[in-house]
Amino acid sequence: MPSRKRILVVGGVAGGMSFAARARRLDNNADIIVFEKGDEVSYANCGLPYFVSGEIENQSSLLVQTPASLKAALDLDVRTGHLVTGIDTERRIVRVFESLDATEPTEFEYDELVLSPGMFSGIADYPGVTEVRSRLSTLRTVPDAIQLESIAQSASSAVVLGGGYIGVEAAEALRSRGLEVHLVQRSAHVLTHFETELASYITTELEANGVVIHANAQPTGFSERDGQLVVALSNDGEIVTDHAVIALGGVPATQIAPESIAKTDRGLIIVDENGRTSAPNVWAVGDAVTHVDPITGALRSVALAGPANRDGRYIADAMLSTSFRPRPAALGTSIVRVFGLAAGATGANSRELIAAGIPFETLHLHANSHAGYFPGSEAIHLVAYFATDGDERGRIYGAQAVGRDGIDKRIDVIATAIRGGMTIDQLADLDLSYAPPFGSAKDAVQMVGFVAQNVLDGTTTLWQARDLEKVMAESLILDVRRADEFATGHLPGALNVPHTELRERLDEVIAAANGRPVRAHCAAGIRSYLAHRVLVAAGLDSATLSGGMQTLIAYHGKDILTHEDN
Amino acid sequence: MPSRKRILVVGGVAGGMSFAARARRLDNNADIIVFEKGDEVSYANCGLPYFVSGEIENQSSLLVQTPASLKAALDLDVRTGHLVTGIDTERRIVRVFESLDATEPTEFEYDELVLSPGMFSGIADYPGVTEVRSRLSTLRTVPDAIQLESIAQSASSAVVLGGGYIGVEAAEALRSRGLEVHLVQRSAHVLTHFETELASYITTELEANGVVIHANAQPTGFSERDGQLVVALSNDGEIVTDHAVIALGGVPATQIAPESIAKTDRGLIIVDENGRTSAPNVWAVGDAVTHVDPITGALRSVALAGPANRDGRYIADAMLSTSFRPRPAALGTSIVRVFGLAAGATGANSRELIAAGIPFETLHLHANSHAGYFPGSEAIHLVAYFATDGDERGRIYGAQAVGRDGIDKRIDVIATAIRGGMTIDQLADLDLSYAPPFGSAKDAVQMVGFVAQNVLDGTTTLWQARDLEKVMAESLILDVRRADEFATGHLPGALNVPHTELRERLDEVIAAANGRPVRAHCAAGIRSYLAHRVLVAAGLDSATLSGGMQTLIAYHGKDILTHEDN
Repeated sequence: MPSRKRILVVGGVAGGMSFAARARRLDNNADIIVFEKGDEVSYANCGLPYFVSGEIENQSSLLVQTPASLKAALDLDVRTGHLVTGIDTERRIVRVFESLDATEPTEFEYDELVLSPGMFSGIADYPGVTEVRSRLSTLRTVPDAIQLESIAQSASSAVVLGGGYIGVEAAEALRSRGLEVHLVQRSAHVLTHFETELASYITTELEANGVVIHANAQPTGFSERDGQLVVALSNDGEIVTDHAVIALGGVPATQIAPESIAKTDRGLIIVDENGRTSAPNVWAVGDAVTHVDPITGALRSVALAGPANRDGRYIADAMLSTSFRPRPAALGTSIVRVFGLAAGATGANSRELIAAGIPFETLHLHANSHAGYFPGSEAIHLVAYFATDGDERGRIYGAQAVGRDGIDKRIDVIATAIRGGMTIDQLADLDLSYAPPFGSAKDAVQMVGFVAQNVLDGTTTLWQARDLEKVMAESLILDVRRADEFATGHLPGALNVPHTELRERLDEVIAAANGRPVRAHCAAGIRSYLAHRVLVAAGLDSATLSGGMQTLIAYHGKDILTHEDN
Repeated sequence: MPSRKRILVVGGVAGGMSFAARARRLDNNADIIVFEKGDEVSYANCGLPYFVSGEIENQSSLLVQTPASLKAALDLDVRTGHLVTGIDTERRIVRVFESLDATEPTEFEYDELVLSPGMFSGIADYPGVTEVRSRLSTLRTVPDAIQLESIAQSASSAVVLGGGYIGVEAAEALRSRGLEVHLVQRSAHVLTHFETELASYITTELEANGVVIHANAQPTGFSERDGQLVVALSNDGEIVTDHAVIALGGVPATQIAPESIAKTDRGLIIVDENGRTSAPNVWAVGDAVTHVDPITGALRSVALAGPANRDGRYIADAMLSTSFRPRPAALGTSIVRVFGLAAGATGANSRELIAAGIPFETLHLHANSHAGYFPGSEAIHLVAYFATDGDERGRIYGAQAVGRDGIDKRIDVIATAIRGGMTIDQLADLDLSYAPPFGSAKDAVQMVGFVAQNVLDGTTTLWQARDLEKVMAESLILDVRRADEFATGHLPGALNVPHTELRERLDEVIAAANGRPVRAHCAAGIRSYLAHRVLVAAGLDSATLSGGMQTLIAYHGKDILTHEDN
């Protein structure tokens, strides 16, 4: 009888545990040992903010599995409180401190080694951190969540440092517990992956729910004053508060990996399409490994539960099955709840496309979550990118959406289309489920296809909110909304001709344009598209504003409008 | 100057109006006349049941457009109350009664003709129909909905004849208005497109909300007795009620089409991939035209708003643009709300696959609408079909799902995957949006991919609820639930070994099997899959029940269970 294969796993959350469970199903005899430095494995790390908010009431809900349940169901040997401190890939040995009291590591041999180390929260080396340590939290583990939930019961204010997903979720959670909450964000808006014209909805929602946002600011130091925590900011401001949550992003916890396991400059473990590292019989998975962006080709980390869980499974297949396939290049599809809003994204955004030198067109839609005539319909604000030229003409590069209902569905449908290599024509061709409570006969996603088809075949020509200054300098702005809408605020110098009057008043438009291009807009983009078709038929150089006044204001703010008559 | 092209459209709802609007955007000069026999165009026909229920409060909400708004925005000449009675495709002439008072039709010439006639409700030729006509309603037009809503205010009971989508929606609407509601259904369950094991959830929901279902029954005659309507049924029963809603399916309203426009035996107008009929310059769209099933190749009608609207658009492109593409073969994706449940489907079902001679495997899942540890998670009961052999190995053929949340999203994702020609591997590879309020790290749709991969590579072998009798006759049924679950009811003769004890109690299983195959099951299919892997490693002929006891009971009912000890 051959000896049992010894498989060691470092890290018992998401990718590591997904691997271990799949490995057991494929090899009933292997000796599978999982080392986890914390006291819990396989916990619901994405649920931690909702334990802080009180929505998840029981700590036990966060513990999806325990070492005992994993032993019973899958014969896994899960060892918590075990800190792996070294790896010798030559001798195939892992060094493990088996308890907090251990003075020396124990050596474990392996046939196969899977690293799932994750990130650790670098509470950065800011002045004063040590002195105020008890007033600082992170939100990565179950004990973190328990501590923060407890603090939320007594504190009256808190600051969240970092406006990424965890930061925003933490701010929401603390605010919903009644604390005064400040949110400090390095860049111009929270959730930097989102475009400016969508992020403004998120900012508005946070502020409407009482979160005070400090944008373009970073913490520069910590101190105490009068029994409170003082966080100094790079913009010379300071925040006096009870407590701070550090959500500034993590550092790959990959120091244990020796030189034989190649890493990027940032410390990400470099893995191939099957999850193999550069060392023989060593594999890696999770937040701390490299992913290739399937749109731009960029090497990056993807700190998401879905890809980590799947990659763990696919590594087990590659290790133990004759039937396996490459782990797919993660699209980075993500979603976050921000009070009553959801914000979702898939694929590349405009910044990533520009950085990669990929030409693209952007389109904006404001659609209904379901039939507008059925109660409860909510606006879906959506941005999508696609290729207009070359071999990739019609390819979908990415999309983002914000709204109160149906965001996850639209992002998932587009993520599926991107994964399938589908084109905008195929978006138009989708047969989606429709009844008035659930959707529209022409769904937002199909509308992306229809509008993109119009762009590609020249039926429509878009102009973009980001180009407003240049467009205003060179063109006649034609506002085709009704007169009463125009009176609520309009662009300086705009000519108002409602789209229903345009056929009769074409001469007026031609005279006002005086040889300049005509750049039409309405509230959301539909009426000005109809106007555009009339203008084109009249021989004018015309374009219609992508997303209309809604996108324009979301991008530039209301201050660009005037109420003056021209 | 060339003369304006004259385009006539017969039927001003969905496909016809979608065509007309697109045609105007592509041709600013054409003379576009739309004839509609009713008083409204472009109305929300899918919203009619929700006007009856009172959820849509205002009649005006149902009127998406009016002739005046279509004239103003799109320069369309929309003529309501105009009944088209004849077409001469030789002379390119349509005959129209221009009002109810008209004694003779007026002739209109056309360059292009688009037919969007839809279906009419055949209130079938049952005995007594004429005498009780005022007690019978249909639900196809705005006046129908207004009438039925008015009746619902005074009637205390009603019967709905027909358990298709409109029938179920009408039953829900009337019940929600407080009426005693009977629903008569020709076949064994309502919504016959759904598999037995999903339809049972729908039946349970209807009955839980007080709808009395008469299955395997048809109306055979109508009469009045003591001021009430009596509906005689084919099963010798009768229903005494105030009112009846006829929702027995429609008949193509294509009698106006002459022989030069080819039709099927059922009366559907045969159209090509661009919507052209057999007569030159005559096109057709909507419920009354043929569609090719993209899975089975069958010729069928697709009475859905989405395909009708899109096909209208694509016909305009084919007629008026140099950039056009074939109308896609409609997948028939659909969804219906049944009180608190949603039931959705896309692609083929098992009956259609069997009829087409297409081999396939079925899998059942009971997944969570979002992370189980987050409040409000609901069960998603899902069935999927895929190809196991030949060139199509791994191809997704269809899916159905029932549940209280997230059904539309999963059906739409799978519908997108089918449209993209994706395989079950690509379902597993999807990057879907995940945060605890919205989904799971391994979403139901990805689980379809994972399970199907396991089937294809032999990691799992399924047995099906529909084969229960044969399986019980030939195999050891191994129930791997906990003892307390087993005690609540189990299959006669089943051996209970909880999956966590299976490794230690293998000898017991081998002895009980006594050379027979082992057919494992648990509650939902997950634990018995783990058990299956242990049984296979022990060299046993093993399989795991697709969907577990939940699917078994949904298919066969609870009466198959016993509480006796073995």
